Amino acid sequence: MPDLQNVIELIYHDIIKHKNYGEVASYIPELAAVDSEKLGVCLTTVDGQVFHVGDWQDRFSIQSIVKVLLLSLAYNKLGGQLWQRVGVEPSGTAFNSLGTLENDEGIPRNPFSNAGAIVISDILIDLYEDPRQAMIDMIRSVSGDPSIYFDTKVAASEKAEGFRNVALANFIKSLGNINNGVDDVLNLYFDCCSIAVNCEQLAKVFLFFANNGQTPDMNNVLLNPSQTKRMNAIMLTCGFYDEAGDFAYKVGLPGKSGVGGGIVAVLPKHFSIAVWSPRLNEKGNSYRGLKFLEKFTTETKLSIF
Amino acid sequence: MPDLQNVIELIYHDIIKHKNYGEVASYIPELAAVDSEKLGVCLTTVDGQVFHVGDWQDRFSIQSIVKVLLLSLAYNKLGGQLWQRVGVEPSGTAFNSLGTLENDEGIPRNPFSNAGAIVISDILIDLYEDPRQAMIDMIRSVSGDPSIYFDTKVAASEKAEGFRNVALANFIKSLGNINNGVDDVLNLYFDCCSIAVNCEQLAKVFLFFANNGQTPDMNNVLLNPSQTKRMNAIMLTCGFYDEAGDFAYKVGLPGKSGVGGGIVAVLPKHFSIAVWSPRLNEKGNSYRGLKFLEKFTTETKLSIF
Amino acid sequence: MPDLQNVIELIYHDIIKHKNYGEVASYIPELAAVDSEKLGVCLTTVDGQVFHVGDWQDRFSIQSIVKVLLLSLAYNKLGGQLWQRVGVEPSGTAFNSLGTLENDEGIPRNPFSNAGAIVISDILIDLYEDPRQAMIDMIRSVSGDPSIYFDTKVAASEKAEGFRNVALANFIKSLGNINNGVDDVLNLYFDCCSIAVNCEQLAKVFLFFANNGQTPDMNNVLLNPSQTKRMNAIMLTCGFYDEAGDFAYKVGLPGKSGVGGGIVAVLPKHFSIAVWSPRLNEKGNSYRGLKFLEKFTTETKLSIF
Amino acid sequence: MPDLQNVIELIYHDIIKHKNYGEVASYIPELAAVDSEKLGVCLTTVDGQVFHVGDWQDRFSIQSIVKVLLLSLAYNKLGGQLWQRVGVEPSGTAFNSLGTLENDEGIPRNPFSNAGAIVISDILIDLYEDPRQAMIDMIRSVSGDPSIYFDTKVAASEKAEGFRNVALANFIKSLGNINNGVDDVLNLYFDCCSIAVNCEQLAKVFLFFANNGQTPDMNNVLLNPSQTKRMNAIMLTCGFYDEAGDFAYKVGLPGKSGVGGGIVAVLPKHFSIAVWSPRLNEKGNSYRGLKFLEKFTTETKLSIF
Repeated sequence: MPDLQNVIELIYHDIIKHKNYGEVASYIPELAAVDSEKLGVCLTTVDGQVFHVGDWQDRFSIQSIVKVLLLSLAYNKLGGQLWQRVGVEPSGTAFNSLGTLENDEGIPRNPFSNAGAIVISDILIDLYEDPRQAMIDMIRSVSGDPSIYFDTKVAASEKAEGFRNVALANFIKSLGNINNGVDDVLNLYFDCCSIAVNCEQLAKVFLFFANNGQTPDMNNVLLNPSQTKRMNAIMLTCGFYDEAGDFAYKVGLPGKSGVGGGIVAVLPKHFSIAVWSPRLNEKGNSYRGLKFLEKFTTETKLSIF
Repeated sequence: MPDLQNVIELIYHDIIKHKNYGEVASYIPELAAVDSEKLGVCLTTVDGQVFHVGDWQDRFSIQSIVKVLLLSLAYNKLGGQLWQRVGVEPSGTAFNSLGTLENDEGIPRNPFSNAGAIVISDILIDLYEDPRQAMIDMIRSVSGDPSIYFDTKVAASEKAEGFRNVALANFIKSLGNINNGVDDVLNLYFDCCSIAVNCEQLAKVFLFFANNGQTPDMNNVLLNPSQTKRMNAIMLTCGFYDEAGDFAYKVGLPGKSGVGGGIVAVLPKHFSIAVWSPRLNEKGNSYRGLKFLEKFTTETKLSIF
Repeated sequence: MPDLQNVIELIYHDIIKHKNYGEVASYIPELAAVDSEKLGVCLTTVDGQVFHVGDWQDRFSIQSIVKVLLLSLAYNKLGGQLWQRVGVEPSGTAFNSLGTLENDEGIPRNPFSNAGAIVISDILIDLYEDPRQAMIDMIRSVSGDPSIYFDTKVAASEKAEGFRNVALANFIKSLGNINNGVDDVLNLYFDCCSIAVNCEQLAKVFLFFANNGQTPDMNNVLLNPSQTKRMNAIMLTCGFYDEAGDFAYKVGLPGKSGVGGGIVAVLPKHFSIAVWSPRLNEKGNSYRGLKFLEKFTTETKLSIF
Repeated sequence: MPDLQNVIELIYHDIIKHKNYGEVASYIPELAAVDSEKLGVCLTTVDGQVFHVGDWQDRFSIQSIVKVLLLSLAYNKLGGQLWQRVGVEPSGTAFNSLGTLENDEGIPRNPFSNAGAIVISDILIDLYEDPRQAMIDMIRSVSGDPSIYFDTKVAASEKAEGFRNVALANFIKSLGNINNGVDDVLNLYFDCCSIAVNCEQLAKVFLFFANNGQTPDMNNVLLNPSQTKRMNAIMLTCGFYDEAGDFAYKVGLPGKSGVGGGIVAVLPKHFSIAVWSPRLNEKGNSYRGLKFLEKFTTETKLSIF
């Protein structure tokens, strides 16, 4: 492996000296208020090394990245049965589209669309006594960091303004693919999206995807190796909405983005990397986050392809 | 690595003793006439080993698998400029859909849909004096097998019955994304789809995708390493139409299928594998071919994830 | 004019001796409980005649027919400005589709889709201090029958089960075309859909559409002649969801149907006719109601074409 | 009736003194070359009166208006059987859309979309020995004007440039709803669209739709009264593509437009009116033609509603 600390520093300095593009998510005030020029990076390896640069200690909203963790919680308990409720195909449409649901009888194309994550939230309510607590416990345990928290202001804003997600949930309910009350499902979903993390915490949370489903210290076994491989495949094909193909093409790693500006990616058997920069391109993915990862895998040749 | 000859033989014998499902492609008589129970496999490694089992010497029609080679020929000459004419996103729709073209102004979502391959064929007519010859020369040279040929009966049937593809090509032409005559473009496309190969030839043709873009003997450099990585990424996200996510999930290798019943897949740095069995599932991919590859990567743990 | 009492009796007896088809709406228990074999008819003319046959005195749920009255209330006050919020084009899709809203930025294609009626309900909240009361006052006054009432059990069931309409309203809200609270808008909409009428009341309520916008006794002026003409045009092109063309073709009158099994139609300058029979065809329109009206206009040649 | 000659002159002079909007059709040179400021009008009544103003003697290309005549020729011979091959519902989409065909298995939504007219052309080839001749014979006979002709230059241009229509025809063929060769079908269609008429000829050709299906001189019986009523209904709901609702709303007459700038409309029992002005609005309908008809029916109150 190349000297990773050196590589990420070089790329970091190269990127911050070029113009930044895109818009910070502004549909709720809590996201709009963030400093748009931040850029943080943290890489953690399965053999225990940690590299970081820039604003890696700043907290940001995990947002859609949590969909991968919601899915892991459900997949761990339900196994393959899960796929009766949600598909694994890229949708070719935007993250909040209602388009294909009608034809597919309420089965979302994949678990990383909003529709898919809402169905997973419904499943978690059936599987866990307190799914909200189960999520935060899992994140804290896997990262080894008990300070990770739900940002209740963010969650409250999402609940007040999330008309599109309320529409999605009711639409799916009308098609028969939600069991619980729509409000309960959405509360869980919005709470989980509100979780505040920094780059180091995020990288550590995702390291088990690079390590056959368990944390390197062996204390947490979240998925078996076959399930882990499958989760990585879904991240690759569906992790970036209608930019998934482009991310695979340019970066070549399984990963997931959120409108908080975070992106996390994984090289199986080797490492996880979290990048954060708030300005989003028109597809809703972090502009500098994508740039960073593209340069990183191009330079290091560390990709799955 | 495990004993691959042993592995493929065990899986082969396991599969042929189970019931076969699906339908042989029947839209032209030449494809319909094939023996539906055939199953052939060949795996070739970058360090020169070859393993095979079953009907690996039987010829079959390459069909859509050739789209990867059409794209390679164009990408090699045009580089990134190519992406002004065709996208790299999974479409979430069937292989011959016209659905998204209208919204996207004639830019096919990806080069492995029929629409995309037709646009690539148009590009090749502009790039090569004799693109038909360039294609067969490339295939013969890369595989080291000058006996590979165009099956003119298959090509003639496709031309006589290919109304959907004629529709696609005229539609794209009307939207401004085809330069040459529609007949010339389609003739090239149908000719290339008609190429007859066996499993060994097909595996050998695709080995350069596992070897940074060149044949292991170094005699053919088709793509540079970065281009090769990107081709593999496109195969993974777009190689199986609206079953691409499922293939990534179950098999976890970049690959491409054809209605002739062939599937080829690649593990970068290691090997290429060609499987052939004529019965197709409802998505148009070989039923036993998929089964074989799923068992193979599950057993050997040889996947990119 | 032919002897209308005789005509409707003959058609009535002809229809009830043939097999009845279709299903009674069953999404709420109140609609499901109705006697599926009922058939009532009432025709009222602008010169004061009334003809009826069958179960014309039975009450049924007005349902979507009220959309025409909602629109009239809004059009009367707002005039052409209204069309900035909703279109007048047939949608070519089912009554509860979300499909085209996304492309049209929350502007429903026409006021007789559920989406359109929900937007009209939102407009009425802005226009009237008590729009619920305004609606029932108008209906009672126009029909001269103060006994018409909201069926609160029906309304309560719709509110409890109307996930699809909650989805629609929230979706439109997310696209910016609803001003008021989603719950307020839907409560008004569901209340109005719950109004119970019999055939005579319904025919009388709609007579002003045949009489240049006013009741024949001149006591109620609801629309001016030009507005009335336009309302009739919208009923013709959009009154029967994706069966509007078929209704124009077979019946040839402006009209509107509801899932309660009612259909009302109008011959400008001459009459209004209300038909009720609970079994619905697969498009959601009364099977026997359509049959009756087709026979009626064919026999009498009383159509706009 | 009001003094119609006076009315059309007043409206004519009012319109030509206001700014003209829209673009002349330019996809073939023959249409692009026309004088964009022309405006002609002719109204013919079932009792033999003729009124005209402006450029009513200038010839223009009938284009899509001929679809109504194609349908009449087929309907006359096949009757209701016809509707197994094409629907009667407004499509809610543009005239040349492929969108809904795929879901509807090659059955066009209505006979006045390009897809629908192509299917009707295919039917005519099966019904008539020489359908091209049958069409021109019918037009000449009904109008009493043997000078009406096919404009072979227009037809040749359409054939050379009509990629979208070639796409449509091949797509429908692939879905099984075209029997004859695609070229034969399109040649007939393009020939019929090329017919050159002036306003007086066009109004006279359509007068039988206002006269129960026969010419006022009783020499031509083209449709029976019931069929005529149904043709008028289809014109009303489907005659103006995705502006059909708007035309019904503003004008309130059955009618049909063409990209040559012509519009013809009918008041059953009374008259036919042809208007021609080449500039088209964004929906492909004559800007001044629509304006004229809207003013005409508003002023005279002569509409079906």
